[in-house]
Amino acid sequence: MDFRIAEISAGRAVFLVTPAEFHYNPIGVVHGGVAATLLDSAMGCAVHSTLPAGAGYTTLEIKVNYIKAMSVETGEVRCEANTIYVGGRTATAEGKILDAKGKLYAHATTTCLIFRP
Amino acid sequence: MDFRIAEISAGRAVFLVTPAEFHYNPIGVVHGGVAATLLDSAMGCAVHSTLPAGAGYTTLEIKVNYIKAMSVETGEVRCEANTIYVGGRTATAEGKILDAKGKLYAHATTTCLIFRP
Amino acid sequence: MDFRIAEISAGRAVFLVTPAEFHYNPIGVVHGGVAATLLDSAMGCAVHSTLPAGAGYTTLEIKVNYIKAMSVETGEVRCEANTIYVGGRTATAEGKILDAKGKLYAHATTTCLIFRP
Amino acid sequence: MDFRIAEISAGRAVFLVTPAEFHYNPIGVVHGGVAATLLDSAMGCAVHSTLPAGAGYTTLEIKVNYIKAMSVETGEVRCEANTIYVGGRTATAEGKILDAKGKLYAHATTTCLIFRP
Repeated sequence: MDFRIAEISAGRAVFLVTPAEFHYNPIGVVHGGVAATLLDSAMGCAVHSTLPAGAGYTTLEIKVNYIKAMSVETGEVRCEANTIYVGGRTATAEGKILDAKGKLYAHATTTCLIFRP
Repeated sequence: MDFRIAEISAGRAVFLVTPAEFHYNPIGVVHGGVAATLLDSAMGCAVHSTLPAGAGYTTLEIKVNYIKAMSVETGEVRCEANTIYVGGRTATAEGKILDAKGKLYAHATTTCLIFRP
Repeated sequence: MDFRIAEISAGRAVFLVTPAEFHYNPIGVVHGGVAATLLDSAMGCAVHSTLPAGAGYTTLEIKVNYIKAMSVETGEVRCEANTIYVGGRTATAEGKILDAKGKLYAHATTTCLIFRP
Repeated sequence: MDFRIAEISAGRAVFLVTPAEFHYNPIGVVHGGVAATLLDSAMGCAVHSTLPAGAGYTTLEIKVNYIKAMSVETGEVRCEANTIYVGGRTATAEGKILDAKGKLYAHATTTCLIFRP
């Protein structure tokens, strides 16, 4: 998928990707699955960043709103993910995909199950 | 992604995929984004199959529940998608990913916006 | 809310309600929150029906699609909820609101966290 | 439901409610449907606040994450809703329910269909 990690801090992760033709669906724009995969990765990473050593998580569900299709003309986009809530057994996070000018392409939320040792 | 189309009829689409190592995330199971992409593709196709020539659609949102991770041991899975509602301006659909024994790996719903000529 | 329980069996719950003016929002149709509450109640009940004595659950999230607004002309509607997956720690379920003729008003899914003794 | 409107500005709405026993479910906490109704109302209002005279909207779907149950001990909560995206045909918004100390009880997103004259 060629995602790059730009930033990880406690409760936050930022991933970068430059839409390319190998991301395309047959209609000629980036497949919605690329945005879903990017958001899933970054939101999971934001949740993971809050967990102590030995703890893990699994994603129970993601919900993605598609706002605008990406194409090769879009240029590099950043996916910013932040935790909303981190508790003992569950966590939630949200994420957005934005281009260099701040235009929104997709946004999402997720619910994770946490395993603590 | 190496998805294959097994069936398309009015309001229904079935896609097949055999999980492979190139679908993996760094943890060593199939990335959740693969399931999301598969479900998105099949549900969109199910909606599209109900539209007359000249009409189109765009996916507004998808919501995916992850039940069980896929791996190379899973073997071929089928993604069955069916429309729930198709109206003048919007449509909804649901999808499931199942293995050869009927075990459930993920399920999803989607909301689409329809463009009629 | 004046909901009535029509059926509860393992993994399934059916609730009934007759839309009335006290369910209305200021625009003059039944508030979307009534459908959400009805679906939440029935889906939670469907999950609960699968649990052994001493086990409990909490709803992590619900996702509701509104298809058609209800009014006093709608007459009695039934909310049919069925579990999709029940595992050791989590469960998912889906629900639909239908009128006497089978017309669809809303559909939903939920994710629950299960507590086992 | 006894909701009060604290603030409405372009793209933003804040509703207040004080959980009371008439909001309770049989388990003795505020029914999840109250949070869903509150979030649905405030997010719809935030979207509506961005529309010109003569335009309208309908809610296609809401997705609510429940973080903590409300009770009569919770005291007044505020539901803060803000639009994420408002386009020609669709809009999305998010909302949170917080108590006086900023503790989070639920969060949500919605997708609306917009009708322009």
